[in-house]
Amino acid sequence: MADKPLILVTNDDGITAPGIRKLIEIMNEIGDVVVVAPDSPQSGMGHAITINDTLQCNPITVGDGPQIEYSSTGTPADCVKLAVNEILNRKPDLCVSGINHGSNSSINVIYSGTMSAAVEAGIEGIPAIGFSLLDYNWEADFESSKEYIKNITLNVLKNGLSDGVVLNVNIPKVKKEEIKGVKICRQAYGNWKENFDKRVSPQGQDYYWLTGEFLNLDKGEDTDLWALENNYISIVPVHFDLTAHHFIQKLNSWKF
Amino acid sequence: MADKPLILVTNDDGITAPGIRKLIEIMNEIGDVVVVAPDSPQSGMGHAITINDTLQCNPITVGDGPQIEYSSTGTPADCVKLAVNEILNRKPDLCVSGINHGSNSSINVIYSGTMSAAVEAGIEGIPAIGFSLLDYNWEADFESSKEYIKNITLNVLKNGLSDGVVLNVNIPKVKKEEIKGVKICRQAYGNWKENFDKRVSPQGQDYYWLTGEFLNLDKGEDTDLWALENNYISIVPVHFDLTAHHFIQKLNSWKF
Repeated sequence: MADKPLILVTNDDGITAPGIRKLIEIMNEIGDVVVVAPDSPQSGMGHAITINDTLQCNPITVGDGPQIEYSSTGTPADCVKLAVNEILNRKPDLCVSGINHGSNSSINVIYSGTMSAAVEAGIEGIPAIGFSLLDYNWEADFESSKEYIKNITLNVLKNGLSDGVVLNVNIPKVKKEEIKGVKICRQAYGNWKENFDKRVSPQGQDYYWLTGEFLNLDKGEDTDLWALENNYISIVPVHFDLTAHHFIQKLNSWKF
Repeated sequence: MADKPLILVTNDDGITAPGIRKLIEIMNEIGDVVVVAPDSPQSGMGHAITINDTLQCNPITVGDGPQIEYSSTGTPADCVKLAVNEILNRKPDLCVSGINHGSNSSINVIYSGTMSAAVEAGIEGIPAIGFSLLDYNWEADFESSKEYIKNITLNVLKNGLSDGVVLNVNIPKVKKEEIKGVKICRQAYGNWKENFDKRVSPQGQDYYWLTGEFLNLDKGEDTDLWALENNYISIVPVHFDLTAHHFIQKLNSWKF
């Protein structure tokens, strides 16, 4: 590592979102910052990558500060690939994604563009953290958790992460003095009860809006949902080996 | 289960792709088939869902057969949500996705629209299988593996799957008589060495095409890549608890 760590910053809400602007401000206090982020919101993109279309990626000046910034037409995972392969002249020491406007706890990690960027960095062998605040509001309070975000980041830079592990950090929507601390958790088991809002266009065509309600199906006190409900910041170590190892033996007993 | 199982079929290559047409043909021999699939290719979409735009989903007749078909503007995960919540009047007994034109082995499962549909079904509590053939060709030979696909499907209907487990099935690109059988595997560790093809548009704007080469970083003989290289059909049980449980203890030793 050079004197100052090289930190890649990205997100899925787009390069102008208040969440990423705060994250850039915090990272400027820690290292040399390069931002490669989507030019428009990419929420719910999961681990999408752009293979049937072209990508653009151009220098941009969004706010004050010493950071170097690029805006891309791609998804969060595209941004990480572009940064590592085209923009940066060395592998970054860390990739941080967020601060997301809204929760990526429990099963939401699957749909999360924020976490897909962190996972993509992990696949490339870069320590990575996704940060999310449980507040969809564009004017959400990103200041209250600043010291926690800095502390978690410094911990990762100091201790490193195992190959194939990245961190999913979620922050409760409470005042600074109400945050009780940090809890290491497992991903809670839950799902969405969808509710499609069916409408008719002026041309007479049916269409739908996807809406829904999140269901917590897991009462464990070691989960991210429990921690967040109890005003803790949750950290779930996430990996990208999706193998359900416990089910291999069972499958081997089947007759194919 | 009714007399005949209700089978939901989807994919990510689009409803007219030869792979899904073959899968529908096979499923028609097993159960009552309802198809809800994207109206255009969605490869590389990962677990994307459509939350910032509207969705359309309309009845369509693509080919012969007793199946009922709907084509949607959404992603594979959207198709499963639409099917379960708006199209079907009961929970399907099985969801199958594919047959994908191209591999979803190893880390490719992360980027896979085919597998995102299977995972989405799993989240909804529906047994699910994603099928992929290691041949990108539109005229790929989907016939050779027909009996294997039928056999694996019947096994899942008979034995069931654990809550939260779905199957990722990949088929080698070889003649029928060269397929050595089925192997239960873990997901191989590998990644893509990207190679962005940088070009200049007629308007003078730089743009990129994402290309790359897959690197197998895992020499284990219990992996899907090993099985496929040795002419076996690979089955990896996949789950959507991304928690890296082995790293929790380590994180608890950090000072936050």
